[in-house]
Amino acid sequence: MYKCIRITSSSVRLLNSPVKKQAGYCFLNSFNYDKYNHKRNLNKVIFGATLSSFLIYKLYEKKYVYLREANANTSEYGAYKPNLPSYTMEEIAKHTTKETRIWVTFKQGVYDITDYVLKHPGGEQILLGAGHSVEPFWLLYGAHNKPQIYNMLEAMRIGNLSEEDAKEAIENMSDPYSNDPKRHPVLKPASVKPFNAELPLSLLIENFISPNDIFYVRNHLPVPEIDISTYELEVEVEDTDKKVVLTYEKLKDLPKHTITATIMCAGNRRSEMSKVKIVKGLDWGPAAIGNATFTGVLLRDVLKLIGVDEDSNYKHVQFEGLDMDPTSKYYGSSIPFWKAVDKRGDVLLAYEMNGAPIPRDHGFPIRVIVPGVVGARNVKWLGKITVSQNESDSHWQQNDYKGFSPSVDWDTVDFNKSPAIQELPVISAICKPEAHQKVQVKDGHITVQGYAWSGGGQKIVRVDLTIDGGNTWHVAKFDHQDSSEPPQHWAWTLWSAKIPVTTRIKNAEVWVKAVDSSYNTQPESFKNIWNLRGVLSNAYHRVPIELQW
Amino acid sequence: MYKCIRITSSSVRLLNSPVKKQAGYCFLNSFNYDKYNHKRNLNKVIFGATLSSFLIYKLYEKKYVYLREANANTSEYGAYKPNLPSYTMEEIAKHTTKETRIWVTFKQGVYDITDYVLKHPGGEQILLGAGHSVEPFWLLYGAHNKPQIYNMLEAMRIGNLSEEDAKEAIENMSDPYSNDPKRHPVLKPASVKPFNAELPLSLLIENFISPNDIFYVRNHLPVPEIDISTYELEVEVEDTDKKVVLTYEKLKDLPKHTITATIMCAGNRRSEMSKVKIVKGLDWGPAAIGNATFTGVLLRDVLKLIGVDEDSNYKHVQFEGLDMDPTSKYYGSSIPFWKAVDKRGDVLLAYEMNGAPIPRDHGFPIRVIVPGVVGARNVKWLGKITVSQNESDSHWQQNDYKGFSPSVDWDTVDFNKSPAIQELPVISAICKPEAHQKVQVKDGHITVQGYAWSGGGQKIVRVDLTIDGGNTWHVAKFDHQDSSEPPQHWAWTLWSAKIPVTTRIKNAEVWVKAVDSSYNTQPESFKNIWNLRGVLSNAYHRVPIELQW
Repeated sequence: MYKCIRITSSSVRLLNSPVKKQAGYCFLNSFNYDKYNHKRNLNKVIFGATLSSFLIYKLYEKKYVYLREANANTSEYGAYKPNLPSYTMEEIAKHTTKETRIWVTFKQGVYDITDYVLKHPGGEQILLGAGHSVEPFWLLYGAHNKPQIYNMLEAMRIGNLSEEDAKEAIENMSDPYSNDPKRHPVLKPASVKPFNAELPLSLLIENFISPNDIFYVRNHLPVPEIDISTYELEVEVEDTDKKVVLTYEKLKDLPKHTITATIMCAGNRRSEMSKVKIVKGLDWGPAAIGNATFTGVLLRDVLKLIGVDEDSNYKHVQFEGLDMDPTSKYYGSSIPFWKAVDKRGDVLLAYEMNGAPIPRDHGFPIRVIVPGVVGARNVKWLGKITVSQNESDSHWQQNDYKGFSPSVDWDTVDFNKSPAIQELPVISAICKPEAHQKVQVKDGHITVQGYAWSGGGQKIVRVDLTIDGGNTWHVAKFDHQDSSEPPQHWAWTLWSAKIPVTTRIKNAEVWVKAVDSSYNTQPESFKNIWNLRGVLSNAYHRVPIELQW
Repeated sequence: MYKCIRITSSSVRLLNSPVKKQAGYCFLNSFNYDKYNHKRNLNKVIFGATLSSFLIYKLYEKKYVYLREANANTSEYGAYKPNLPSYTMEEIAKHTTKETRIWVTFKQGVYDITDYVLKHPGGEQILLGAGHSVEPFWLLYGAHNKPQIYNMLEAMRIGNLSEEDAKEAIENMSDPYSNDPKRHPVLKPASVKPFNAELPLSLLIENFISPNDIFYVRNHLPVPEIDISTYELEVEVEDTDKKVVLTYEKLKDLPKHTITATIMCAGNRRSEMSKVKIVKGLDWGPAAIGNATFTGVLLRDVLKLIGVDEDSNYKHVQFEGLDMDPTSKYYGSSIPFWKAVDKRGDVLLAYEMNGAPIPRDHGFPIRVIVPGVVGARNVKWLGKITVSQNESDSHWQQNDYKGFSPSVDWDTVDFNKSPAIQELPVISAICKPEAHQKVQVKDGHITVQGYAWSGGGQKIVRVDLTIDGGNTWHVAKFDHQDSSEPPQHWAWTLWSAKIPVTTRIKNAEVWVKAVDSSYNTQPESFKNIWNLRGVLSNAYHRVPIELQW
């Protein structure tokens, strides 16, 4: 039997088991020290230090609380269906390849997903569930808990799980997110498990610096709980003995560096792209972005400790977080080597965010800040840095966070054909007024406010607005812009504009576009930049409003 | 009296006189050594070494050849008009300010241009002609020689120049361009004086490397003739005694560096923007671009000779060419300091272009190559480098080569409000087929070819094409792309696409857009990026074609 245990050994980093041949499994159960006797010195994380026995979410008793949370009526899905054959877990476990057909279970349902595998937005991750239950993964990736996905699965139904196996599965289910931190209620979740949330738009631009408690959160996995007294960061050059292990204190002894940088999710404003044609990904509004002051040590200073500098001949620097998926894989990502060692790269191993220790949701105790680069490379809960000739082989580097041509769909996509997103293109958004709000005309003008930002250290040089479909454009005033110059301008620009309204119109659509210091500007429409993952959603922001006279 | 003279003294750099109080003046006349006793050591240029007496273009005899070249019927403009008052040059010379009114002459016409000054596309340059003739300037900036400009001027007519002064003016007119090099006849001039020309589109992409003889030419002034045996390059830090003077030989002794880089004019594809609303500037097609291999010394290595390196605290590096305007001002420009000293900046003082000495039209003997940056900063015929806290104060840095919002016009433009263009945004163009060509459908496909490029060392990662207005997009194949990685990817990408044609259509419009490694893409239409100077003209390239089945 499987049950969750509390691990206190300082020699243990990993607390997850690999996927078990079982319908349900305890996320933190079946600990086997030998499996985790990694080469590296792993005495750092106490993942779930306070979990102990109460972490066992007896979903059998709780009647699938996690599904109810997703607001889906799930009672029918995965329920026993008469007139279908019954299979044991042992039988199901034999169906793991195209040849044998790929089967999975969900509650008491058995499904043949062979023909769906290639279309799975999460790529080959789906095969991790082959011959087993998909439930541990769906607990982890809450985005699956939607009626349309349940319906898709039910269409592949081939049988029922035997009564005995179904019962055992439910008994052993646990919630890997039970130890996530408490969040500020003003954050609007795009998903709860993992936690992903943005601020209401009107609050987003209240401050040039976004407060920690209400900084947008983009987590891919449960938040690990890390004890800084045992925390260690491994830094190494792949296939060499160049290596150093740094404690939290040792990191803090290195030269201190502070930058103000905007971090943005590649999927910011995805919900607008979805309106053209549905995309797969969290339904972000325009607030999956924030701007903070980060203090820490420069990655280039840390790399010098192992003899790596600007003249070294490497291609990538890989990062591993201490957040882990059910197969014991850490979140991983990489950046080009030049960015890591460049004098003007400003890549930071940050221990402070806005003057306070990095909050748990944002990577406590150490988060990589890669200014000008997509949020996904700003790895949280940093556990390991590897200098390499290769990109990270993680799912998030190889099979996600890439752009594609509008006509590429899930049947034709080849993730090898696009580069991993690094620097982000220029973007802007109107935050006040919000869509369909009433706006008072004062002295023949309406006031509009928002943000603009560009990746790669580019500065915003102009923000243009129109309320007549581009016949006349009005240049916004910058209310707050950092004084740093390209290529080290990392922070967003907050702007406002007084737009003249000459005729007594009742309705209008406000458009905004920004121009950055390389004079790149935003594309006009989502139609022509649509991509199946809904990333890089930087077309003009268009906000319909009602004018009041 | 004024006449052109041949200067052979090695202590003379400048051969031009400042503007004279006269209706016409000899471009190389009235040499006054004292005026040119510059601080710097100027023994380098023999501007017009072969000019001597035959340089005296007696336009009186030649009946304004330069005007005939511009294909304008000019006989009426500036001709004597009865019933208007007559003024001597002495009287006219008193009218140089707003208070006294600003007068100029053209042939025998006298004009009050006071109310036009602020609208002049060339900015305050126009005031250099105040109280004098505009003809020397118009000889230099051939773009003025157009009927619409003559008409504009005639509308400001207030009188006639006295007979005697008019005769003298014509006698002393000379052509500053008489010593320009011979050009390959395949180059299509956008202007003859100064010479600006592009290749026919179909030839442009024949080679990944553009041959020297047919590389597009963008000159702002006459081509200086420089003797490398006396050539010297001054390198200094402003307001200090940090200074070095380098001969051609000394430069060639420094470490050699080679890059392949695309150079593009900020006005490339301007003619498409003009179709939305007229802009002021050379009417470039999409071929004001070329790609070559340049060899020379790194600017950062040269700056080290005067103790300037990456850790120095300066903001700009200014360049002066040896090409000169009628007021003895050199062409000038500057780039941000970081770009000049950056390890990955690759700024070159090039002495070779595609393995041969830099051709005269391209900056012999030394041209700055600032890869990833607008052509205007790639200063030709380099005479001086100044490390400074300030940008170049030249017209071309301050009052030209800047972008503006579409609703900014010549009445409202403030050149101080926009930054000088440096890195250029992503662009692409279809070169084959050209507009309105017949294209054969083969096996249900048409073939389209072109180029794509982005500034700032960004690489092109995708080129998308559509022939149905963006309903379906097709990804181009890269026929030639340099293997260098961002942020040092300086060369263009040549691509081709086989686009399926499923219905038997007779006409189509092919659109192209490129995406670069920061995932910036091109704006859709010229309407929303229109600017009064017609620069940064990088909207989708749309080519109407006729299909043959």
